[in-house]
Amino acid sequence: MTKKPDCIELTHGSGGLATDRLISDLFMAAFDNPELARRNDGAVIDRVDGRIVVSTDGHVVTPLFFPGGDIGQLAVHGTVNDVAVMGAEPLSLTAGFIIEEGFEVALLEKIVRSMGAASRAAGVPVVAGDTKVVERGKADGVFITTTGIGWLKDGIDLSCEQARPGDAVLVSGTVGDHGLTILAAREGLDLGPELKSDSAALHAMTKRLTEAVPGLKVMRDATRGGLAAVLHEIAEASGVGMLITEAAVPVSDAVKGAGELLGLDPFHVANEGKLVAVCPAEQAEAALQALRADSRGSQAAIIGTVTDDADRFIEIETPFGGRRLLTRPEGDPLPRIC
Amino acid sequence: MTKKPDCIELTHGSGGLATDRLISDLFMAAFDNPELARRNDGAVIDRVDGRIVVSTDGHVVTPLFFPGGDIGQLAVHGTVNDVAVMGAEPLSLTAGFIIEEGFEVALLEKIVRSMGAASRAAGVPVVAGDTKVVERGKADGVFITTTGIGWLKDGIDLSCEQARPGDAVLVSGTVGDHGLTILAAREGLDLGPELKSDSAALHAMTKRLTEAVPGLKVMRDATRGGLAAVLHEIAEASGVGMLITEAAVPVSDAVKGAGELLGLDPFHVANEGKLVAVCPAEQAEAALQALRADSRGSQAAIIGTVTDDADRFIEIETPFGGRRLLTRPEGDPLPRIC
Repeated sequence: MTKKPDCIELTHGSGGLATDRLISDLFMAAFDNPELARRNDGAVIDRVDGRIVVSTDGHVVTPLFFPGGDIGQLAVHGTVNDVAVMGAEPLSLTAGFIIEEGFEVALLEKIVRSMGAASRAAGVPVVAGDTKVVERGKADGVFITTTGIGWLKDGIDLSCEQARPGDAVLVSGTVGDHGLTILAAREGLDLGPELKSDSAALHAMTKRLTEAVPGLKVMRDATRGGLAAVLHEIAEASGVGMLITEAAVPVSDAVKGAGELLGLDPFHVANEGKLVAVCPAEQAEAALQALRADSRGSQAAIIGTVTDDADRFIEIETPFGGRRLLTRPEGDPLPRIC
Repeated sequence: MTKKPDCIELTHGSGGLATDRLISDLFMAAFDNPELARRNDGAVIDRVDGRIVVSTDGHVVTPLFFPGGDIGQLAVHGTVNDVAVMGAEPLSLTAGFIIEEGFEVALLEKIVRSMGAASRAAGVPVVAGDTKVVERGKADGVFITTTGIGWLKDGIDLSCEQARPGDAVLVSGTVGDHGLTILAAREGLDLGPELKSDSAALHAMTKRLTEAVPGLKVMRDATRGGLAAVLHEIAEASGVGMLITEAAVPVSDAVKGAGELLGLDPFHVANEGKLVAVCPAEQAEAALQALRADSRGSQAAIIGTVTDDADRFIEIETPFGGRRLLTRPEGDPLPRIC
């Protein structure tokens, strides 16, 4: 057995013996599954009869490790969720690593093991991958691009364009946790154990929701730009407005405190384990119960209603009975949040 | 209509309005297809009945533009080929962009248009994508990770482990073109119009080959590490050796000259439009004819034979009747070749 190097070298990305050893020692061990073990250019997934869903996401989060998670598990959860919110059952993942020369092998191993654990916990294997190495100063540690493949059952057709006036808007739990955790970590602030990323795989929840709510129209995970970005995307795509009850949107005390301290609105920052759903009003209660039945959805809430508004405004009803507009964010106020 | 910015800013990766505009103005325009236009978290691919193949590859080539291609078309060709050499029909691609802050929008547009053109020419649409932006100095222009989804017809089961003594080894054309082109470009050498990347999509060729050669055992595209790396991978996985006739391996005069000038062996550097195939000896002629029937395979050749060799050596028979061992490369001698 060859001694493992301490740092990633350019030759680890050159497709030869060094790449082989890195793949065997590190990736195979962490992602352990028979398709990957065949070492072909790609993987064969089980037979599928029906529509296939595919989604891809690059992960460039900084710091690489943060309270509640790391880039590896985030990459798994993010892509599992992108497939799941389309109403599909995630089948497999692929992972492309772009690594900076000099990156510590021990850190890479920690990240890859975390990905492996998240993938096994979700039951969605990493079946194919790729490793590239770029020179020192040409990347930032490690970037991970994951792609998810899913199977979409007949009869399910969710899309952002389907919200109609009168529909109910739900969120699956507290908002702002991931974004404020990352910012606090960057600022070196320890705001206590309550403030941590909500990074989680939501495919059990989305399955439950699609089964319980035949009229379900939209599911979206509220990542970059947070709740505000998702509500605006749905309103924009459907040509509607929304009226959201501020007090109905769950925000943890830790996030509230961090938001005030750091000057960020929890509605505007990323979540990595929360979804927004839209369904007909008469099925809202069934949707709420389905969300709450999931271990990740105990704080789910009906937060508002879709309105007939040619301006596509998202109005927030404040606890004092006033109304304000929820601005459409230019983007997540934090770069490299995921 | 908003004026396009000249350079990519961090906010283009933050998931808000700026990202939206970049996607609409640039990606949608170049990749124009209905699934992408729905702006969901992922894409729905047509009904599939059978096995699905998936493959992923990060592209970090430098320079971004080179004789015969650019990173955009390379990303399309590379991933189409990875799916195709598994014997599958490529259906769709996803593309994840990681862009350095300050990168020129005009260059990005050129790259994305080139990707779009390559994808349309191949008939394999880019159905889902993602854009992240990292700070200046934290990436190198643009990195593109593509994932390909394909459909694998029943009865096709190619794999590196299946080469057996007596089998024929074929290559689909000249070797070394891409690698030597990139190196010459980096060195600022103009070695004439003959020296250019062979970047090309090979799925028409692989389809023809699998149809013509029922006993086909292995197809691999000879990318990083070139012909040498692929022959060694197959020998290693199958537990066999090979005897290759040096004079039978097609190498263009331009590549020969560049190789001598730059001190690189064309057998050891990357190709982006060439495949190696292994089949039973009695089907070798049919395989050769199938390869040559393709516009990209006019110089295809039978280059050697699989041998019974516990040491898994790749022996080269020289034009003078001697024999030498083809070393197993530590990796491609050039970093960031693809």
